[in-house]
Amino acid sequence: MHRTRVRVVEDALDANNTIARANRADFDRSDVTVVNFMSAPGAGKTTLLESVVRRLDGAVRVGVLEGDVEGSMDADRLASLHVPVTQINTAAGFGGECHLDANMVRSALPSVDLAAIDLLVIENVGNLVCPAEFRVGEDVRVMVCSVTEGEDKPLKYPLMFRTCDLVLINKIDLLPHLDFDVDRLLHNLDAVHPGVPRMLVSAKTGEGVGEWRDWLVERAARAGAPA
Amino acid sequence: MHRTRVRVVEDALDANNTIARANRADFDRSDVTVVNFMSAPGAGKTTLLESVVRRLDGAVRVGVLEGDVEGSMDADRLASLHVPVTQINTAAGFGGECHLDANMVRSALPSVDLAAIDLLVIENVGNLVCPAEFRVGEDVRVMVCSVTEGEDKPLKYPLMFRTCDLVLINKIDLLPHLDFDVDRLLHNLDAVHPGVPRMLVSAKTGEGVGEWRDWLVERAARAGAPA
Repeated sequence: MHRTRVRVVEDALDANNTIARANRADFDRSDVTVVNFMSAPGAGKTTLLESVVRRLDGAVRVGVLEGDVEGSMDADRLASLHVPVTQINTAAGFGGECHLDANMVRSALPSVDLAAIDLLVIENVGNLVCPAEFRVGEDVRVMVCSVTEGEDKPLKYPLMFRTCDLVLINKIDLLPHLDFDVDRLLHNLDAVHPGVPRMLVSAKTGEGVGEWRDWLVERAARAGAPA
Repeated sequence: MHRTRVRVVEDALDANNTIARANRADFDRSDVTVVNFMSAPGAGKTTLLESVVRRLDGAVRVGVLEGDVEGSMDADRLASLHVPVTQINTAAGFGGECHLDANMVRSALPSVDLAAIDLLVIENVGNLVCPAEFRVGEDVRVMVCSVTEGEDKPLKYPLMFRTCDLVLINKIDLLPHLDFDVDRLLHNLDAVHPGVPRMLVSAKTGEGVGEWRDWLVERAARAGAPA
C-alpha cells in the first residue's frame, strides 16, 4: 500500500517535470527569465511584488502569473500598476489545489505575451509544502518568509527552504515589536540550505527592496545575454 | 481527463471520511472531545496551545497529536508542560504531506491513551488549503489567523474559514504597528462564514486566551454529559 502510494506520487512528479521542461523551452525561446515566487499565506508576496515592480522603471519588462485558490484580488492590485497579469485559479472542479503545477502554468501560457516581457514572476499559492515539490519551468525560486512567522520555519518546511535560490526575509520593520532572533533564523536557514542568498527586506518601508530589484534585473539580463 | 481527476479526488475523500468516522467512534466511546487545530505556518498555533494548556488547571485533561512535515520541536515544547503528546510526521516515504488525513491520525491512535484524557487537540500541518479538505474524526475545527497575514485571507482560502467552528484572531498585540483593519477582516469572514464564532486573542499578552479556555472546557463538558 505504502509502496504503491510512493510510486503514484513519483509518477505524478515525473509527469509534472516533463511539462515543466516544455514550459522552460518556451521561456528560453523568448529569452524570458522566470521566477517561481513562494511563501506561506500572508508573508507579503504581493506587496513585495508591487514594491519591486514600481522600482523596475523600465529596466526589465515584467509580467505576472497570479496563482490563487479563488479570487483575483492580488491580480487586480498588480494590474493597477500596468503590468500584464494572468490569473490562475486552482479551485476549478474540486476542492482547490494548494499549489501550482506545470500543467496549470502551461494552460495559462496562451494568455501570456512572452515576446513582450523579459521577466515572468509566477506568484504561487500561499503554502510552504507542496509548491516546493512541483517545478513549473522556472529559472529561479524566490521565497519570502516573514519575521512574524518565527525562527523555526526552515526546520519545519525544509524542502521549500532547500530548493530556493533566494530568501527574502520580510516585515523587518516589525522586529522591534517581536521576540524574534534574526541570527537564529539565519542559523536554521544555513542548517537546511547552507549559504543560500538572503536579503532582509520590508515591503512597508522599502528597506532592502532595491537590493532585490538589482538581483532581478541581473538575473533577467543573463537570459538576454549571448551564451 | 479532468472528470477522471475529479473522480479520483472524490474517491480519496470518501475513503478518508470512512476512516474519519472510525476515529470518531473511538473518540466517542472514550468521551473525548477532539479539536482539529489549523492555521497558516507561523500564525501561532503552538504558542496559543501552550498558553491555553497552562490555564486549563485540571479542568479538563488534555492530550495533543502534533502534526508536522518534519521534526518534533512543537511536540517537545508541549511535552515540557507535562501534556501527553504524540508526534505525527508527514514526510515519511515521500516529499511530505501538507495536511493530516484520517489514516495518519488512526495510525497514531495506539499511542494515545484516550481513557486518560477528556480533550484531544490535533495540531495540523500549517496550511490553509488541504487540511480543510480532510476530516480526521474531530468534533470541532478551530482555526487561527494572525493579524499579520492581512484582511483578505477568508476570501482567498474560503473552505478553511467556511468549515471551522471557531476563529481565533491572533497577535492582536501587534495591531498598533500594522496597517490592519479588524473590521475589514470580520467583514470578509462574515462574507464566507456568516456569524462564525470568533475571538480576538494574543498568545503573547494572554488577552482573550481565558475566553478560549472557557470555550474548550465547555465543549469538553458536553462530551462527558449524559446524552
